Amino acid sequence: MSVESTLASHGITLPEAAAPVANYVPAVITGSLLFISGQLCLDKGTVQAAHKGKLGASISIEAGQEAARLCAINLLAQAKTALGDLERIKRCVRLGGFINSTPDFGPLPQVMNGASDLMVLALGDKGRHARTTIGVAQLPLDAAVEVEAVFEIA
Amino acid sequence: MSVESTLASHGITLPEAAAPVANYVPAVITGSLLFISGQLCLDKGTVQAAHKGKLGASISIEAGQEAARLCAINLLAQAKTALGDLERIKRCVRLGGFINSTPDFGPLPQVMNGASDLMVLALGDKGRHARTTIGVAQLPLDAAVEVEAVFEIA
Amino acid sequence: MSVESTLASHGITLPEAAAPVANYVPAVITGSLLFISGQLCLDKGTVQAAHKGKLGASISIEAGQEAARLCAINLLAQAKTALGDLERIKRCVRLGGFINSTPDFGPLPQVMNGASDLMVLALGDKGRHARTTIGVAQLPLDAAVEVEAVFEIA
Repeated sequence: MSVESTLASHGITLPEAAAPVANYVPAVITGSLLFISGQLCLDKGTVQAAHKGKLGASISIEAGQEAARLCAINLLAQAKTALGDLERIKRCVRLGGFINSTPDFGPLPQVMNGASDLMVLALGDKGRHARTTIGVAQLPLDAAVEVEAVFEIA
Repeated sequence: MSVESTLASHGITLPEAAAPVANYVPAVITGSLLFISGQLCLDKGTVQAAHKGKLGASISIEAGQEAARLCAINLLAQAKTALGDLERIKRCVRLGGFINSTPDFGPLPQVMNGASDLMVLALGDKGRHARTTIGVAQLPLDAAVEVEAVFEIA
Repeated sequence: MSVESTLASHGITLPEAAAPVANYVPAVITGSLLFISGQLCLDKGTVQAAHKGKLGASISIEAGQEAARLCAINLLAQAKTALGDLERIKRCVRLGGFINSTPDFGPLPQVMNGASDLMVLALGDKGRHARTTIGVAQLPLDAAVEVEAVFEIA
């Protein structure tokens, strides 16, 4: 089953990839690696109120996981635009997860699992990645989560 | 026009690359990739008072953009030292932007544009990169901005 | 002298590599690169009280350096598990250092030196890496330090 069919079977349709808002690009291919810019938890083109703010303050762990999941969906949308076809993905190599959090919010990995679980749901074993999760002081648009990715491609 | 001529036409001379201050190196080449250590907004060898502190507190967006621009200039200075000749750069693959910011400072991307714009000014289309921008709790020397880079090289 | 013999001569035995706690893996090999997930300052399988909390508050610089050193040891433990043999490492390409710190803690690089020094102790000149050090709002398990790595391998 293709990646997009798998996503569809779980009720997920990839959104149109967000356009860059400055002098950078959403994705760069170098050799067999695809680097994708940090993706915010955009939903229908905007960061919804439910996914704004800090874990440990205004955002619940569940809302944070949903935000992380949206970041992963947006990474795949960017990969599709860059590659033409998600079947070219051989492996998700690395995810970098940035959680907008208060200085005392501990369960950062649980939040990031929203992104990791989506990547494995979409790609199966090819979706199992190295990852780094940190809690940051602030993110663009006061988004709750931002995730960047490196993929190996064919 | 060469990268350095282009920079010169905009009044920019690359500084001498900063020496590492510990058991690490400014740049590592692996295959066709050049990884450059995070560069602070050093100007004449030091972080000037105007580029110290946090966005959202003591630093204006304009000063932050200037700090980000200095980081990009320092990345190119390190690339020149590592490569001998900036013409070996085929592409700026990725910039990672770290903005020293208060927990409520939103316009992180605008600050980081100071680095992205300089990279495109210097390298043209080869300078268009994937990027990730986050707001962090603190940076070395209380610098306002730190930027790291991956380049593809010939 | 092998990497492990060198470590042993300094009284360091690599621990068993920590298992992943979610839908990700400790390490991914792509081409000649080995990406290792961010490693916390685990000691005997847990983050000891001495290595929990923020630099600038409950943790001294010396304890932070020790935490960073533990992260580097855990990175090598993961590399050994991924590679079978640490002699396959040709170069430590990059370390990303994340220091759990208060907004006013300046000496981030000194803390990160605990990781850099260990890498050079273990690998000699092959251990000299590009690095980025930032102070973050929070880390998983309230760990004082997290470090991620990219290695070039044979």
